[in-house]
Amino acid sequence: MKELLLRNVRPFGGALTDILIRDGRIARIGKAEASTAEVEDGGGAIAIPGLVEAHAHLDKSLWGMGWHVHQAGPALEDKISTERRLRRELNIDPARQSARQVALAASHGTTAIRSHVDVDTDQKLWCFDGVAATRERFRDVMDIEIVAFPQSGLMIRPGTLELMDEALANGADVVGGLDPCGIDRDPKGQLDAIFGLAQKHGKPVDIHLHEADDLGAFSMEMIIERTRALGMQGKVTVSHAFCLGMTDRARAAALTEHLAHQDIAIATTAPASRPVPLAAELRRAGVRLCAGSDGIRDTWGPYGNLDMLERALFIGLRNNFRNDADVEYALHICTQGGADVMEIADYGLREGAFADIVLLDAETVPEAVAARPKRKLVLKRGKPVARDGQALFTVE
Amino acid sequence: MKELLLRNVRPFGGALTDILIRDGRIARIGKAEASTAEVEDGGGAIAIPGLVEAHAHLDKSLWGMGWHVHQAGPALEDKISTERRLRRELNIDPARQSARQVALAASHGTTAIRSHVDVDTDQKLWCFDGVAATRERFRDVMDIEIVAFPQSGLMIRPGTLELMDEALANGADVVGGLDPCGIDRDPKGQLDAIFGLAQKHGKPVDIHLHEADDLGAFSMEMIIERTRALGMQGKVTVSHAFCLGMTDRARAAALTEHLAHQDIAIATTAPASRPVPLAAELRRAGVRLCAGSDGIRDTWGPYGNLDMLERALFIGLRNNFRNDADVEYALHICTQGGADVMEIADYGLREGAFADIVLLDAETVPEAVAARPKRKLVLKRGKPVARDGQALFTVE
Repeated sequence: MKELLLRNVRPFGGALTDILIRDGRIARIGKAEASTAEVEDGGGAIAIPGLVEAHAHLDKSLWGMGWHVHQAGPALEDKISTERRLRRELNIDPARQSARQVALAASHGTTAIRSHVDVDTDQKLWCFDGVAATRERFRDVMDIEIVAFPQSGLMIRPGTLELMDEALANGADVVGGLDPCGIDRDPKGQLDAIFGLAQKHGKPVDIHLHEADDLGAFSMEMIIERTRALGMQGKVTVSHAFCLGMTDRARAAALTEHLAHQDIAIATTAPASRPVPLAAELRRAGVRLCAGSDGIRDTWGPYGNLDMLERALFIGLRNNFRNDADVEYALHICTQGGADVMEIADYGLREGAFADIVLLDAETVPEAVAARPKRKLVLKRGKPVARDGQALFTVE
Repeated sequence: MKELLLRNVRPFGGALTDILIRDGRIARIGKAEASTAEVEDGGGAIAIPGLVEAHAHLDKSLWGMGWHVHQAGPALEDKISTERRLRRELNIDPARQSARQVALAASHGTTAIRSHVDVDTDQKLWCFDGVAATRERFRDVMDIEIVAFPQSGLMIRPGTLELMDEALANGADVVGGLDPCGIDRDPKGQLDAIFGLAQKHGKPVDIHLHEADDLGAFSMEMIIERTRALGMQGKVTVSHAFCLGMTDRARAAALTEHLAHQDIAIATTAPASRPVPLAAELRRAGVRLCAGSDGIRDTWGPYGNLDMLERALFIGLRNNFRNDADVEYALHICTQGGADVMEIADYGLREGAFADIVLLDAETVPEAVAARPKRKLVLKRGKPVARDGQALFTVE
């Protein structure tokens, strides 16, 4: 029976207390008696549950590979084909790069990641196998969910469906999809295929939907129809969902209502340069929202660092959240919101939950979001995995 | 004759070289001979010219005053009146708070600041006097330009014009303005008054324009008309200029052309939640663009840190800049762009210019923007003012 006592911490910035951890779970929250447990003194730090990265691409980053000069063309298809070519040319090894990203994410206090992983007829299962190896290797450090993701299209690249089927049989957790109109030019074909795989394997669905305005709304309706017909309420996520930022707010509101009824979640990166789903409107309608970093430092672009506390800031800035309660909601999206979408059992800062805990030196939660201090201590199931902004384990 | 030799630095991420500094200016860029100068080894760091904060509110921040719980109402007028009330209640002393912000800005590599400073019939010149004292006190550390800014309105608060006149007589550098329709309800009255002050004192103008769409375009036209009529080309800046983000792109393009003809500059914060002037369009049209942090950690909102390298990132994210050349332009806006608007003589990384230099550990300029490393060394006219992210001087 292994015990750790976190002394002098303030859950969500509240009153000073102690957290007793036993066998990887929170045994008690409250001022502790004298104890034989190992002690970590939080020094008054804020405690929050582990950050949840609900939309990453662990197979993609060039992190640690030197600077990549970006000069790809402007179209989505340019970036997809540039990446497919550069993967092999630059040897962007999915096992190595996903391991590096696990260390980076842990250093920032993330304890769970949903990662889309490319499946296509060029790479076949190379990306899946690499990230699956990382998932196994870092099982004690990070919960990783793998989405089998047809980045290069499903209907336009015959053979992809069979590869996705194989990935799901081999342990992929979620069925991915991508712009059924914009990329695949066959929305019925792609969505029937994706939802078919979900039914066959009993897995949830997470679809990238960049399509804007009426086109995106049309695809969204088709996703809603299939969710309803198949009774998949609570099992479907739409990532990006830019169409919800459409200027026709009445149409966006109607779509949002349908999403709420089918309990379809939205994953956002809160990009500054695109129309986006408005967090306050989704919240009012009862639609669950989670967030992620998307690809970081990859052939698509130069930005990103897998810091979900910074992502909470970006959500706050994008949604013009200024009041404390709103900024706290931005962090909620990056913690509980992601945990709900990943269906992480026993998540949260409460007795009985897994001790996935982040300590932050700040006065209040909104200050932590605004200032993004180095993570003072990160625990995964009660075990320190990062301290003072550095992961406590190394990867090559 | 004081000499400092910066060894092993890479100007803008280029080839390794040395920079010899003499009497506060860059005497030579090139591999140095043996020298009797004091030496700083850059260790291969990138060298860029000092960052320029072209839109700040040094009289406003609550930095260092403990967390302020935000719960102001949503309207602009709510925030203005909340602030006027809290200034005295919380004792937001402009001298103290501007000094703290100078140290913060210097720690991030900023060497020049244009600050709007509230002038109104409640505060009178309290804010101006405080920031002017800070300008004098930190003369060797930071170039500070003061904009006499009628935050609470000019026409709707009689007496304000006389106070602005007094501030300009006492050393304010720039005539400010604010939403001549939205706040003052008298665009002709306000703009005639502002441009009149500018003519009287021979000073440039910098007008906050939050007004959107056609309303903002109307106010912008009136600013353009006065700039042309008074021959003030190159002397007028419009801050925010949200109307340039209007959906009627043809109208925005026509306005932009007029701005270019009158050489009116735009100052942006690249906010994620508002339509904004598009950096690429302004650049193509030949309109000068500078950037700033706006108010930080004040009664208006919880965000901000005066880090202009982070602001370059925000510009990149807001404008969807992905290619290296574009990200370099984002940094240009936060360096040379601001220096041009502030008409800083002898600015830049070239022989003869003042030695306002920032060293950054990064491989390339775009990587520095994406990663925002702690500033390794900051020189103001050849003198170290910050190192490893910490200012080398203290303020109370």
